[in-house]
Amino acid sequence: MIYNLAFIGFGTVGQGLAEILLDSEEELYEDYGFKFKVVAISDTLKGSVYHPNGIDLRKTLEMVRDGHSLNDYPEAATTGWDSLKTITESNADIIIEVSWTDLKTGEPALTHVKTALQAGKHVVLTNKGPIALAVNELEQLARENRVELRYEGTVLSGTPAINLGRYNLAGSKITMFQGIVNGTTNYILTEMEKGLSYEEALKQAQELGYAEADPTGDVEGWDAVGKVVILANVLMDQQITKDDVEREGITKITREDLKSALEQGKRWKLIASAKVNEDGSVTASVKPEMIPLDHPLASVSGSTNALTFHTKYVGQVTIVGPGAGKLPTGFALLTDILDIHRILQASSKHA
Amino acid sequence: MIYNLAFIGFGTVGQGLAEILLDSEEELYEDYGFKFKVVAISDTLKGSVYHPNGIDLRKTLEMVRDGHSLNDYPEAATTGWDSLKTITESNADIIIEVSWTDLKTGEPALTHVKTALQAGKHVVLTNKGPIALAVNELEQLARENRVELRYEGTVLSGTPAINLGRYNLAGSKITMFQGIVNGTTNYILTEMEKGLSYEEALKQAQELGYAEADPTGDVEGWDAVGKVVILANVLMDQQITKDDVEREGITKITREDLKSALEQGKRWKLIASAKVNEDGSVTASVKPEMIPLDHPLASVSGSTNALTFHTKYVGQVTIVGPGAGKLPTGFALLTDILDIHRILQASSKHA
Repeated sequence: MIYNLAFIGFGTVGQGLAEILLDSEEELYEDYGFKFKVVAISDTLKGSVYHPNGIDLRKTLEMVRDGHSLNDYPEAATTGWDSLKTITESNADIIIEVSWTDLKTGEPALTHVKTALQAGKHVVLTNKGPIALAVNELEQLARENRVELRYEGTVLSGTPAINLGRYNLAGSKITMFQGIVNGTTNYILTEMEKGLSYEEALKQAQELGYAEADPTGDVEGWDAVGKVVILANVLMDQQITKDDVEREGITKITREDLKSALEQGKRWKLIASAKVNEDGSVTASVKPEMIPLDHPLASVSGSTNALTFHTKYVGQVTIVGPGAGKLPTGFALLTDILDIHRILQASSKHA
Repeated sequence: MIYNLAFIGFGTVGQGLAEILLDSEEELYEDYGFKFKVVAISDTLKGSVYHPNGIDLRKTLEMVRDGHSLNDYPEAATTGWDSLKTITESNADIIIEVSWTDLKTGEPALTHVKTALQAGKHVVLTNKGPIALAVNELEQLARENRVELRYEGTVLSGTPAINLGRYNLAGSKITMFQGIVNGTTNYILTEMEKGLSYEEALKQAQELGYAEADPTGDVEGWDAVGKVVILANVLMDQQITKDDVEREGITKITREDLKSALEQGKRWKLIASAKVNEDGSVTASVKPEMIPLDHPLASVSGSTNALTFHTKYVGQVTIVGPGAGKLPTGFALLTDILDIHRILQASSKHA
């Protein structure tokens, strides 16, 4: 099967996927029978190009690297289409939504996703905004329009988390999860344990590109709250919002706290968790917790992320892997696209 | 969709699945639209029963617990069919192969699986024998007959391993894996580290039901070799056999070895691994290795299992969870059945 792909946004994550696609085009066909054409890229800052027969992905990456606008793409392609026009009027089958993240409104990604689903197009995204705010509504829209929606990369980037809980642990009855789902804060805590002050560790995280200039979203726990909302709503069949999640960041933790925890055989971690109550509701939180050193999450250090699922039938299952990064996050989109491909391929096999 | 299920074998694992099915029948329909009837159970020792409209699974569990033969099942059902007759002549859609394991011949399970696939029936199994010996042939047979074959439980029981690597990490390019894939030996090593002798730890493992009366398959590494063969063939596109895997068990490891490793900040583990070489072949082994205490596998203790995948695009991803047990292994069959259901459901959605 040949898929027509359109990128809405072409920043780090989109370019990460583009690099992976170019690097593994041959194997994707050999191993999975997956063939693709990129028919459109539309980015607010980098310009926009569309050609129904496919554009040269390598050339677009070079243009963007060299600071050229995609509006200058030659070879009789259509240029300048905005994101909505690209979604509705291009011949793309799968929309790759990789515009910017806004956790408050979800926009513009939320409108992109809705428009694409309503236009009968499959959507993959790594953007927490629309999923944290409206996953149940979007899933409903996907069902109504008989298309697929995937968002593995919204939690733990390309480390299997959403699809792991949703598909591989299907039927296991997830009663609780606990995780380290924000790499920036875990990096800061790890460095503080080695002796840095909070300010020094934060500065280092910023220099390495883990933390943003305004680190509030990470250090105050907002990013993790968004992920808890997604996991609870998708894997525990809830309808919670960020206001239902108790939240405390890491800014009050001192080197002394970390040291004294270690002396008790414990370690401070920013733990994101949710637990299903007897009545079916959940209790969810993001807060620093002291966990024993032999707990699977205790040895998760630096920017690595991890999630432990507590299940009725398999007991505890923990996944550990990167929580961010250009290629891991780009890969999350690929794994979602390949899952859609697997579903569609099976459809023709069993039809 | 309603599926007709047939159990070939009805020992611990089969009964584990039966208990889960009874426990979650309602949720499976509500959450996944999955409905089932068990139409047949055929076990060499426990007897055999078939009814095209379904048998009472709870009653069969009770009969087996009370030592009654399923041949005495009342209510005008057909009884006494052997496994092959049950596979070919029953109206089952999905064959649950849970007879006994023979790593040398794969029989009788190998013939069961082939017969079922050729009869156009989907197959799920947790039996390492047929998969370690003939996975490529069986996959080919499944493709030719347009049916689905799943075997999540052959490695790490219900902890996602095969399906994790195969579906969630699809396209990530797995270049290497390392794991603790045998709970018995890991339990023995953990107890020896606490001070027991090898003999004492083995005896304890036997009393707890982790180790068999003849522990050779576990302690000499044969069980782990079978799992390495499966993982390499399925996830790295290889065609290796057990003879291609370097093998050394844990019987030569002493308490002193374990102690001296700890003093160096390391820990002995029986590590199963395979690495893709430059020329596309793999180097595979099962042998005791000293790994640093901060390695994700070092903190995996007791009968817990773990696998670390090294990938080109996501880096290292580690999964930790139970490697055995009635419910976790029974659940492995359920997750496979639900995956087949997901594929078939999508087929009707996208047809």
